[in-house]
Order: sequence, then structure tokens, then C-alpha cells
Amino acid sequence: MGVQSPSYSVTMRLRYPDRAGQLGRITSVIGDADGFIGAVDIVDVRKDTITRDITVNARNEHHGEQIVSRVREMPHVEVISVSDRTFLLHLGGKIEVTGKVPVKTRDDLSMAYTPGVARVCRAIHAEPDASFALTIRRNMVAVITDGSAVLGLGNIGPRAALPVMEGKALLFKEFGGVDAFPICLDTQDVDEIIETCIRLAPTFGGINLEDISAPRCVEIEERLIPQVDIPVFHDDQHGTAVVALAALENSLKVVGKNLGEVKIIINGAGAAGTAICKLLLSMGAGRIVVCDREGAISPDDSDDRHPLKRWVAENTNPEQETGSLSDVIRGADVFIGVSAADVLSEDDVKRMAKDAIVFALANPDPEISPELAAPHCKVIATGRSDYPNQINNVLCFPGLFKGVLEVRASRITEEMKVAAAKAIAAVITETELSPDYVIPSVFDRRVADAVALAVSTSAVDAGVARRRTKPAHLGTG
Amino acid sequence: MGVQSPSYSVTMRLRYPDRAGQLGRITSVIGDADGFIGAVDIVDVRKDTITRDITVNARNEHHGEQIVSRVREMPHVEVISVSDRTFLLHLGGKIEVTGKVPVKTRDDLSMAYTPGVARVCRAIHAEPDASFALTIRRNMVAVITDGSAVLGLGNIGPRAALPVMEGKALLFKEFGGVDAFPICLDTQDVDEIIETCIRLAPTFGGINLEDISAPRCVEIEERLIPQVDIPVFHDDQHGTAVVALAALENSLKVVGKNLGEVKIIINGAGAAGTAICKLLLSMGAGRIVVCDREGAISPDDSDDRHPLKRWVAENTNPEQETGSLSDVIRGADVFIGVSAADVLSEDDVKRMAKDAIVFALANPDPEISPELAAPHCKVIATGRSDYPNQINNVLCFPGLFKGVLEVRASRITEEMKVAAAKAIAAVITETELSPDYVIPSVFDRRVADAVALAVSTSAVDAGVARRRTKPAHLGTG
Repeated sequence: MGVQSPSYSVTMRLRYPDRAGQLGRITSVIGDADGFIGAVDIVDVRKDTITRDITVNARNEHHGEQIVSRVREMPHVEVISVSDRTFLLHLGGKIEVTGKVPVKTRDDLSMAYTPGVARVCRAIHAEPDASFALTIRRNMVAVITDGSAVLGLGNIGPRAALPVMEGKALLFKEFGGVDAFPICLDTQDVDEIIETCIRLAPTFGGINLEDISAPRCVEIEERLIPQVDIPVFHDDQHGTAVVALAALENSLKVVGKNLGEVKIIINGAGAAGTAICKLLLSMGAGRIVVCDREGAISPDDSDDRHPLKRWVAENTNPEQETGSLSDVIRGADVFIGVSAADVLSEDDVKRMAKDAIVFALANPDPEISPELAAPHCKVIATGRSDYPNQINNVLCFPGLFKGVLEVRASRITEEMKVAAAKAIAAVITETELSPDYVIPSVFDRRVADAVALAVSTSAVDAGVARRRTKPAHLGTG
Repeated sequence: MGVQSPSYSVTMRLRYPDRAGQLGRITSVIGDADGFIGAVDIVDVRKDTITRDITVNARNEHHGEQIVSRVREMPHVEVISVSDRTFLLHLGGKIEVTGKVPVKTRDDLSMAYTPGVARVCRAIHAEPDASFALTIRRNMVAVITDGSAVLGLGNIGPRAALPVMEGKALLFKEFGGVDAFPICLDTQDVDEIIETCIRLAPTFGGINLEDISAPRCVEIEERLIPQVDIPVFHDDQHGTAVVALAALENSLKVVGKNLGEVKIIINGAGAAGTAICKLLLSMGAGRIVVCDREGAISPDDSDDRHPLKRWVAENTNPEQETGSLSDVIRGADVFIGVSAADVLSEDDVKRMAKDAIVFALANPDPEISPELAAPHCKVIATGRSDYPNQINNVLCFPGLFKGVLEVRASRITEEMKVAAAKAIAAVITETELSPDYVIPSVFDRRVADAVALAVSTSAVDAGVARRRTKPAHLGTG
């Protein structure tokens, strides 16, 4: 049934006779219906009646409706209105565009708009890269989707995807101070998505691709990168990979094992699984076996028609293991699932090596419930906030783009992703590390700045940083 | 030479011996160089020296440099730095994306992002029009350009156009409370611009096309309108037309003439001239003659290859006048110039009817200087802020889109534009009206709300308003 959550909370406005014990009877009915009562506010007090707003968290939408029904059945209690807090919060969208400069006077207008703005336009026309200093490009990321693979909801299209992209923009600003604008494209054609991104590039300093289905997302990213002068990053692949590897880095410290020696099973050969695999290889992992629904991918699959699977076959599984997940997991030190609910059994975990590490990242339901896995492994991480060790992309993308924009990086290299992973991991000190604390909280405010610093330093080292010390046209010394 | 303007202002940081009279010598040098001194601030005081920031308005960039040179030549005065206020103001862009909802706690996150956001996505997937209530579409306009005709600067491209589009977004918010986001497209192909706008539509509640060269802008707008479910408005055409007609409405009251009877010359058969012409016709004007560089356009030009000119030939000049501007202006009551500097002579204005109305809207230099025209006409308006009666689009677009978004209009009809023009005009009462006050100031805060109300009412009357009284999914009564 799950627990009561504010994501399913309703506020009931109730009017009832102002008699002793009446509020108690109402809260008892809500409590008996298993509702979790939050704020109780007085709206209005009349001679004989009182009006209150009572906010109740439910377990799901249906449960919320049940609770309201029970209250409606009470004698002398009038339900004036019922509002859904999550929908109310979304009314009119979650972000806005605001000015950073005043336009209160004629002088303001003549600098921010005509005629003064023409001088800035001419300066950029003379030197197009000045747009990275003198416009929103300096700090603006496009969050672009086609709505083809939104959360666990699947192909719900661009209109229905917008609330997620707005949420992403909200997190970019809140955690990284980065401006981000959502763009939900009314096309799911790979060529059209790429050409549209190219046409949009002059307004932005970076492109965050989001919730595009595999393997299209991989093709779009690969083809787009060389065609635009700004960095491109498909968060569902690389963001997940960076955060998972940060957690793995710390988990290996906890169990005292070495990345170059451990046997790693990645379950799921989609975009995220492949990205994790690539990043692991570039960090020095040697013994990786990737499984898909048909079992372990081995060099025998090098002629598979699916490009991701072909890549995996060519680059992993040096010991040429074959068989099902249950076969190859024998003796594995690390399991990383980016697949589906309940595909890993308790017996599978039992067959793993001593001090096993299990990342069950399928959302919303993990590959194995932490309760089942815990007795047989040392470290467990999931994508969920209601267990320890949540693998959440918000630990990566705000700081990563902050660092990228600060040095105006032309692209995001594997080294920069590794630097981001190591920076996230290093936020937790060696003495703080424990099996239940291998990855910082999403609300740990140190993370984004640590990631930004590591990424910008790495960009400079990799030679992809383009920022000059001082933008032109601002003055002379 | 023009006047000193804050759009050409520099701030000099000067260090000099702290002696009596030294500041006076510096300000004298600046004054002798014809600089207008603004703020004078102390930055630092040492034992023997003082450091001050002196802000000076110049007439243009070159003049600013001259003033700085004069100060540099002064003995004992060190120019530490010179900063250009307009460029400083543009550093990092003029707008930002900010959150409207908190994301400080786990509960906030579970409503604004996962898992709560999934419920909102599903609701929009079930009913796509709910995106107009539950996302930024409710109040978000795209300001889209290809950079082909930016201000008077011409085809400077998308990167150099961005500061203008940011400025537009700033004005949308400041004057109309409307969120707007600039999109500068890296293509100038008509088909590609149209298809890109179609792909971007799911994120926006309206599209403001901006600074696209004629006649492409007309084709783009006409072809785009039927292909998207949101209103489209090319501001350079219709915004200019609405504000010009508001001023004309009031000017005719001042001179006591009637729109149906007056002879009107429109000089300039481009996008703005044609839009003014169309709106005038729909308001009941009968005697319009449009001139281009070759003189009056008459029914004889009905086979011209330029589509705008052909349209003008077919719909204006019922008396089939021919000849140059100087020929056909004889006896005209109204001149509306949307053409080029100094194309109207003093003799031309003398040949107009009694109580002539002259709108010389070319930017930055009008068709005739107000000083030359004034002795021979009753009302004169320009696009400039340094003369009375400034025709400025900012009087139209913020309120127009505010009204359109409020009722979720599917398109912007001619009636809605006329309603906007009449609302702008009506902000000035009959008793306030005078030859020098036929159009409100751009800072008149009553204008946007008046326009919004008139436009939304007109949209409802025209049957293009789609807003229901209460968005779905927010609760039950």
C-alpha cells in the first residue's frame, strides 16, 4: 500500500457547527481512514459555525478520495471544497521569467532596450562569441525532450512532459544557480530533433537532453555534439552514470575492494546501462558483464542489430560468460540494476561474493526490495527517497552545468564526468562513510559547488574550456 | 550631434591628489568636452590621494572616448578604469528563470518533482488542453526571431539579435506581467522557421514573431497561424499598426476630422505599412494611398510580383492617383511614414490639407524632423522618446498578450487589434487630449491593463476565447 505522501495530499475546506468535540470527531474519521493529518487552519468563525481547512496526506489518489468520502458521510459536516495540493502547486507552471535589470525610467529603457541595446548587438555581430558574455547564454541551459520516455510513464508526448521539464529547470536554479528553460518538442523524429536543437543553440549555453527513449537518445546526442558550439548532455544516461559511480566509489571504500578487480554485473543494456558501463571502463573497471532480458551479453553478440548491445558485446565480458542473470551473478561483487522491478531474487543476492554491493535503481520499484536484499549484502542503494543511499540525478546536473558554463566548455568529456563522480563521492569524508551513507543527500548544499569546481578544473585540464579571463567590451584598465 | 544619453554613458574610476579644486578641474574638463556629469562617488580615500567614480553621459560612442581622452591628458589624474554602463548592464543577460514554488524540503520535492509530478503529467496526457492550466503555457510567450531585420541594424543574425529579444522579454514581464522567453533561430529559411515554431508550440501559450525581414515575415505568420493551437503575432507589423492607429484615433479627435473621410498617405509598403493599411481599412478608412520608393501604388500595380505591393494595389487608392509622394500628398489629411529618414520635405507638408497629421515613424531618424514639420501641421508623432507623441510598440504587446492568455485565445483577430488600439487611445481623456498628447507615455501603467481587458473581451465576442471558468483537476466544490 505504501506510505502516506504529500504528493497525494488534499486540503478539505469543512464547515460544521462550532460544538465541543466536533473537530475531534472529524480527525478521528480521517485517522480511522488511515489519512495522515497535516495543517489544520481556521478560515472563518461565525455565530454558530466554524470553517476550517484540513490538509491530509494519503497513500495514493484513490485513498485520498476514500478519505474525503468518509468525511462527506459525517452528519453536520459540510465539505465546501476539496483541493489537491500537488495540482494547485502546478497551476500556471512552476517557473517564471524575471528581469535582472530595472526598467522603471526612461534612462533604464534606453540602456536595456533601444537605443542602447543596439551597441551590444553590434558588438556581438562583430564577435559572435561575445554572446556568451553579454546575453543569457552565459548561464542558460535548454532542457529539451520529445516526451518519448518520461519518468516511468513512457511515451506521453511533449505537452504532458512539460511539468517534469519545468521541475528540472526549478532544480537547476535551486541547486546550481543555473538558469534552465524547458523545451518540449512536437516531433519524435531523430533528424528533426537534431536539426531543431541546432537551430535553438544560439540562445543557450548548453543543452540538457531529457527523457528521450533509447536507443534514439544515444544517436541524437552523438550526432548533435559535433554540430553545435555548446555542450550537450543526455541526463538519463550520463547523470545516472555519474551519480551511480559516485556511490560505487564510496561503496568500494566501505567494503575495501578495488574497482580494477571487482566483478560487476550491470542489468539493463539501455541508455543508462551503457553509459554506466562506459564510465566504469574509463575509470578502470575490468570485469563487467552486462545483462539484458536474454541474459549475459558476450562477445558472441558482436553482430547484434541493436547498436548499444553490439557496443557492449565488443567492450565487456572478457571472460566470455554466458547464461541468465542468475547464472552470471555468481561471485559478483557489484550488481547495478537499471532495468525493472523484482528481476533480482533473494537467491541471486545470496550467490554474490562476500560484502556484496547492490544498486537496485529501477523506478519506482527497484530490482529487489531493500528488505529482501539487506541480509545478504553489505551496501544497498536505490532510486527511492524512502531508503538510505538514494541515487538521484539532482546530485549531478546542477553542479555539472554550473562548472561547464563557468569556463564555457565546448563539450563534456568522460574525464569531466569522472571528476563529477569523484567530487560527489568526496563530499562524504572517510570517517563519515558507512554502508547506509555512501552518497550525499540531495539536499546537501555542498555537492553542487564541489561538482562545479571539479568539472571546471577538469575542463581546463582537458583543453575544452573557452572562457577568457575578462569579457571584451566591458571596459579598459 | 544629438543629445547626451545614458545609453552612451561611461563610468571613469579616477585617482588624483586630494587637493582643493582638483575635482572642479576634472569636472570642468568633462564639461568643456560637452559630457553630461551624473553620479560622482567616492571609492577610496588615502593619505594623499582620493579615488572617485564619475559617470558621464555622452552623445555617442566616439564622443565618450573623446571625453575619456581629455581626462587622461590631465596632469596628476590617473584613469584606473573606464566601464561602459550599457555593456555592464548586459553582462550575463537581462533575464533569468526563477522558481515559483519552494524546493527546500523532501515534501516540496515530492510535489514539484517526482513522484507527485507524474500525476500532473498523466492528467495532461489524458486531456492535452490541461497544459494551458497546469504548466507555464498559461502565461508564457515565445519571442522568436531569425535575426534578419533587427532594429535598424539589418540582418545581424541570431546571436547578435538576442539582446533585443531579451529586452522584449523584460518589457513583457515589466509592463504586462507576461512571461516571455527569447528564441533566436539559427536559420533564415522560411520553411525551417515555420516548422521550428510548430515544434516549439507545446511549451508556449503564444508566439511573438520579431524582427524578421519583409516579405518573409508576412508569409511566415500567415502560414504558421493555422498550424499551431496558440496565437501568433508579428509585432513589427501589427504592434506598430495598433499603436499608430491609437494615435491616429486621438489625432483625428484633436483636429475634428472623421476616419471615413480623411485622405491618408502611407509611405512604405513593407510589412508595417501593409499592416497599418489593413487595420485602417478594417476601422473604416476609405481614402488610403500607399507609396513606395517608386511613388503611389495604384490599381495598375495589381500584377506586381511583390505580394505585399499586389495586395496594396488591389485594396487601396480608389481614386487611382499616380505620381510621386510629393504629387499625391497634395490635400492629404494624414501622413504615416514607415520608411526612411528625410523622405518628406517641408514643401510636402505645406501641400497637405489644413490641420494636417504627420506620423514620421522611421527609426532612429524620422521621415521629417519635427522642427521642420511643426509649423505646417497640427499633430506630429515619431518613434523617438525625445519628442512628444512617441509611437512605441511597448504600448501594445504586453497588454495584448496578457489579454490573449487570460482567455486562452486561439488567435488574434483584426477586431482584437482594433480593440487594443481603441483601448490605448481611450487612456487619454477628451479633456486631456492635445496636439502634443495623442498617445500615452510608455510608462503609463494604466495602458497594459486597459489593453488586456479590451482584447480579452473582444476575443470572447469573436468566439476565439477557449478558457473555461475553472481548470480541471484542481478540486471539486
